[in-house]
Amino acid sequence: MTGVNGLDVDDLEELIEGAAADPAQASFTFKAETEWTGGFASETHISDFVQDGTTVESPEFTITGDEPAALLGDRAGPNAVEHLLAALGSCLSVTYAGHAAAKGIEIEDMRFEFEGDIDLRGFLGLSDEVRPGYEAIRATTHIDADASEEALRELHEEVKETSPVYDNVTNEVTLDIDLQFE
Amino acid sequence: MTGVNGLDVDDLEELIEGAAADPAQASFTFKAETEWTGGFASETHISDFVQDGTTVESPEFTITGDEPAALLGDRAGPNAVEHLLAALGSCLSVTYAGHAAAKGIEIEDMRFEFEGDIDLRGFLGLSDEVRPGYEAIRATTHIDADASEEALRELHEEVKETSPVYDNVTNEVTLDIDLQFE
Repeated sequence: MTGVNGLDVDDLEELIEGAAADPAQASFTFKAETEWTGGFASETHISDFVQDGTTVESPEFTITGDEPAALLGDRAGPNAVEHLLAALGSCLSVTYAGHAAAKGIEIEDMRFEFEGDIDLRGFLGLSDEVRPGYEAIRATTHIDADASEEALRELHEEVKETSPVYDNVTNEVTLDIDLQFE
Repeated sequence: MTGVNGLDVDDLEELIEGAAADPAQASFTFKAETEWTGGFASETHISDFVQDGTTVESPEFTITGDEPAALLGDRAGPNAVEHLLAALGSCLSVTYAGHAAAKGIEIEDMRFEFEGDIDLRGFLGLSDEVRPGYEAIRATTHIDADASEEALRELHEEVKETSPVYDNVTNEVTLDIDLQFE
C-alpha cells in the first residue's frame, strides 16, 4: 500500500474514481435512533447504513447525551450542543486527512479547538429574539504538516468547501419531523 | 421534589425565572477539542464549559469518530454525519422532556428515528453542484404521553422553535476557523 496519513492512497483513488464513474456509489443514507431515558438523558444507537440502495451492516455504537447539573442533568454524557462540536471535529479531521492524502501532504499532527456561544433564553422559551442554537462557533485548526503554508492554506479552503458537517452547520438543511402517537 | 419526566419542576422554574431576571445566567460557552488519531479516526474531548463568564468544571468525556470500511476507516466509532444525527436526537429529547415538564405533560416513552441522505461526490471534490453535507434529514418522533394529540402537536411546534441543534442544523451559523501552523 502507498500510505499517506494512515490512508491507502490507491484505495482512496479507487473510491474517488468509482464515484466519478458511477455516482450511485456515492449515495449514502446514514441512520440513528435515539431513546429518551428520563430527565435530560438519552441514548443514541448507530449501526447500519445504506450505500447505493444496499444496507451495509455495522457494529452498534451507543452515544449518551445528558446535561450538566447547572442545566438539571446528571452529566452522564456531553449535551447535545457539545455533541454538535464533536461532529464538527470528527468531520474536519476526516476532510483534512483525506484531502491532504489526495494531494500527497503528510500530516504529522493535527488537532482542533471549538467554542460555541449560546444564550439559553431561546431554549427556555424566554425570548423570540434570541435564537435557540449557537449564535457563533469559533474553531482553530492546529496543523503540523510537511507542506508550505501556502499549500496548507489551499488545503484549508478546500476543506471548508467539502466538509459535510461544516456545510450542514453553516448552511440550511431541510429537516422534516413526523410526529407519531404511540 | 415535584417531578415530571424525571425533572424537578421547582428547579426547572427556578432556572427559567433566574434567566428571565438575569439574562447573563443563560449565557453559556461550550467547548470541545478534537485530536486526529490517524487515517479517518479522531477523538474529541469534552469537559468544562463557561456559564456567565465563570468556568464550570466537568468530568471529561471522549467521543471516537471513524469511517466504516466502505469509506476507508476501521469503524472504531460512528462517523461525523452520524454524530450529527446523535446531536439532533439528544437535543430533541431534552427539548421535548423540558418543555413537556413545564406544561405538566408526563411522557411515558419517547424515541426518535433519523435518516440523512448524502451524496459523497461533494465531500470527494467531484462536483461543485453537489453539496458536501446532508441534502435532507428525515426524523420521526414516537411519543407516548398523558396528553391529547392537540397538546402534543403544540408541544411539537414549540420544540421546533426552541431546540438548539434543530436551529443550528436548519438555519445558518457563523463558523470561523483560524489556521495555526505548528
